[in-house]
Amino acid sequence: MTVSSVAELLKSDLFLQEVAVKGWVRTFRSNRFIALNDGSTINNIQCVVDFENTDEELLRRITTGAAVSIKGTLVESQGKGQSVEIQVSELEILGDSNPDEYPIQPKKHSMEFLRENAHLRVRTNTFSAVMRVRSALSFAVHKYFQENGFNYVNTPIITGSDAEGAGEMFRVSTFEANKAPLTEEGEIDYSQDFFGKETNLTVSGQLEAETYAMALGKVYTFGPTFRAENSNTTRHLAEFWMIEPEVAFMDLDGNMDLSEDFIKSVLAYVLENCKDDLAFLDQRFAKEESQKPQAQRSEMGLLEKLRFVVDNNFKRVSYTEAIDILRNSKPNKKKKFQFPINEWGADLQSEHERFLVEKHFKCPVILFDYPASIKAFYMRLNDDGKTVRAMDVLFPGIGEIVGGSQREERLDVLKEKINAMGIEEKELWWYLDLRKFGTAVHSGFGLGFERLVQFATGMGNIRDVIPFPRTPQNAEF
Amino acid sequence: MTVSSVAELLKSDLFLQEVAVKGWVRTFRSNRFIALNDGSTINNIQCVVDFENTDEELLRRITTGAAVSIKGTLVESQGKGQSVEIQVSELEILGDSNPDEYPIQPKKHSMEFLRENAHLRVRTNTFSAVMRVRSALSFAVHKYFQENGFNYVNTPIITGSDAEGAGEMFRVSTFEANKAPLTEEGEIDYSQDFFGKETNLTVSGQLEAETYAMALGKVYTFGPTFRAENSNTTRHLAEFWMIEPEVAFMDLDGNMDLSEDFIKSVLAYVLENCKDDLAFLDQRFAKEESQKPQAQRSEMGLLEKLRFVVDNNFKRVSYTEAIDILRNSKPNKKKKFQFPINEWGADLQSEHERFLVEKHFKCPVILFDYPASIKAFYMRLNDDGKTVRAMDVLFPGIGEIVGGSQREERLDVLKEKINAMGIEEKELWWYLDLRKFGTAVHSGFGLGFERLVQFATGMGNIRDVIPFPRTPQNAEF
Repeated sequence: MTVSSVAELLKSDLFLQEVAVKGWVRTFRSNRFIALNDGSTINNIQCVVDFENTDEELLRRITTGAAVSIKGTLVESQGKGQSVEIQVSELEILGDSNPDEYPIQPKKHSMEFLRENAHLRVRTNTFSAVMRVRSALSFAVHKYFQENGFNYVNTPIITGSDAEGAGEMFRVSTFEANKAPLTEEGEIDYSQDFFGKETNLTVSGQLEAETYAMALGKVYTFGPTFRAENSNTTRHLAEFWMIEPEVAFMDLDGNMDLSEDFIKSVLAYVLENCKDDLAFLDQRFAKEESQKPQAQRSEMGLLEKLRFVVDNNFKRVSYTEAIDILRNSKPNKKKKFQFPINEWGADLQSEHERFLVEKHFKCPVILFDYPASIKAFYMRLNDDGKTVRAMDVLFPGIGEIVGGSQREERLDVLKEKINAMGIEEKELWWYLDLRKFGTAVHSGFGLGFERLVQFATGMGNIRDVIPFPRTPQNAEF
Repeated sequence: MTVSSVAELLKSDLFLQEVAVKGWVRTFRSNRFIALNDGSTINNIQCVVDFENTDEELLRRITTGAAVSIKGTLVESQGKGQSVEIQVSELEILGDSNPDEYPIQPKKHSMEFLRENAHLRVRTNTFSAVMRVRSALSFAVHKYFQENGFNYVNTPIITGSDAEGAGEMFRVSTFEANKAPLTEEGEIDYSQDFFGKETNLTVSGQLEAETYAMALGKVYTFGPTFRAENSNTTRHLAEFWMIEPEVAFMDLDGNMDLSEDFIKSVLAYVLENCKDDLAFLDQRFAKEESQKPQAQRSEMGLLEKLRFVVDNNFKRVSYTEAIDILRNSKPNKKKKFQFPINEWGADLQSEHERFLVEKHFKCPVILFDYPASIKAFYMRLNDDGKTVRAMDVLFPGIGEIVGGSQREERLDVLKEKINAMGIEEKELWWYLDLRKFGTAVHSGFGLGFERLVQFATGMGNIRDVIPFPRTPQNAEF
């Protein structure tokens, strides 16, 4: 007999048919009702055991976490909230789960406890829902770009380039620790290392993606990136997945359009394709919020927030306008900001971004045309000589979710900026080549995938939206 | 006016309409015909310049590699092999390309030269076709799994586990070279390193994927993996992308079915969706083959090979049968194998795999039930006590493209094997937990994505199917 998934059976109306299913026991109550889950959906199927005719020893082995194989008859369910159930005719224990030892019991566990058991936490409703949404969201990303003529590019993870400038890097080497060979001058002899040079883990695939955009037109990356920063926050990971589209002949306006359309499209995809998981997460979010002090509670529910983003235009505001708003804002005047906004040129902190998004505009905001002094060397200088064509997309509860720019396409201006940064031109010879040969306006952005998953699932800590989080002092599993 | 892509225009029949397009000049001949490409397709659109009414200075700047913006009228083409062309009314040079300096001229370049210019090689027909096919193949992978109920799992890239056992690893650290702090006992004090322990780049996500399969049922990974092996061959990369599905309640037969169905499905996808690129690569392949000695030539063309794999069953052969065939084969008897096959238990070399696939069966082959002694610790021991439920899928011209197995689900047997390998149980506590709590039969495989791209594109060297290859002594860009 074909084994069906729980998701298939719950949608089925083949009443009185014999069916087979395999999964794990979530709960077993009244010596009779098994709530069975196989990961195909957040919903369990109820399997009703004829306990009077079942061996007691077998009944005792039906415990939370046990793997079982069940055959029986699909019938209309008597209980409410479920359409079908299985009257069990055959039950086999595939793998026991000793209730005295199994860590994932049907009760509330602390998030920290679950992180320590990251290999098992996906067996809970919350984490299985989060990880299915994460998977669907990943697919939505690929689908969006592929259907819009983008080519997926795998930029290198190990990089010999140290000019990316986006943050602290991890060293990659095959030298034994403290046994790297030295040159005659007493320096580390990297020519003897695996790649014959110093190498690090990438902090961004942007520069390499640009080389592909200048040939294939529209490209995107979606891969792991790394920051060796000692940030123990709910918003930072040392290893995270980033999405970086890059498009030739596209200016900053096109870039803003693309980022908005992209985010709306992938969120609409999960709203359409992850209904059960999101319904569960929506309830979970409401419960979490209800335990916060009134002032900190989200004004919208999870599903409401997602629909709001999909249905409304992002507000586009120049940095200069934003500074005006912030300078004249109540919290600034009442000195409630930790970093008061006094003058044009200040870098915006999380508190300012949150004020603009959550209090002032009450919708996603795209800030653009930032001061050149606080942005990266590769961003296109505006004619005013002091701002660059940068943009950040700011989201409620998350802060910066996208950072992007039109890239400096003029060889002379780019060289000047590189020199001013103290980067050697020969380090970026290939990047400069793009400006030497057939240069053109082009733009792109980076989106931290985990922040998007956080937004879509309502999870407060970024460590809970990636299977095995890497953070300072933590690389278990 | 909306700017159209070359792909859109070539499919368009809006004759006598005004159109706009941006792209790069591939060739410019007779001071009149621009072959324009924007990366959206391998095909160029011909743009006809009214050279008598065009400034000579401007004409001189229309060189190979230059970025141009063109407006004009779409008309039926006079030339053969193309349906439409553009009569140029406006031409703007966006970025010049000095013909004395631009490395990518319209002539045959050596593959080695192009590798050294990996940032520009994607501007050639061959590499743009390969990279578009690679992108489509990536999407086909996600599409196949998502449509079949699998969840995408991002297993960690930086791993604290050193028991994966699939090969030499790269160290990841934030210690300055030769300046790692020591403990009182004079050992490296990894507690002071970023993660508080020794960490490496992953060689496989399988063990972590198993934890997710035992909760979500069907999962797959698709991410970068690393081998620090000094292999300077046309088949090895230090950084490559791997696909690893893992399925609960699936045995080795199911695993063989899955691998065959998966490969056929993704190849069928590119046959359907990359017709122009594959037609070009098919011709290229034929040309390359024609330059080889008769005996080394492929018996089939590229498209023919792809269709053959999609349309025919893979031959399933046990290791024991394969050894019999090899022992009695002509090359073995005539001592033509570098490694003669004398007895059961021998590890198969590339020459043996190629004989089976290319000479004996003349189709893809799945070998299964290998001797336990030559396979990994986590593979399910058969009842004979000497073979394991392992499988390898062997492809013509490529060799091993898939390696997989049913996993050992019995705690006691797994512990025995781990101990026999000298791995400490506490290193794999979480992996053993899967066998303690609700264990079940499960299986999976790994497929090196670049080998699949090689097969799909007919490229002979694996360095030519990934944008920026990482190999010993090479991490440029």
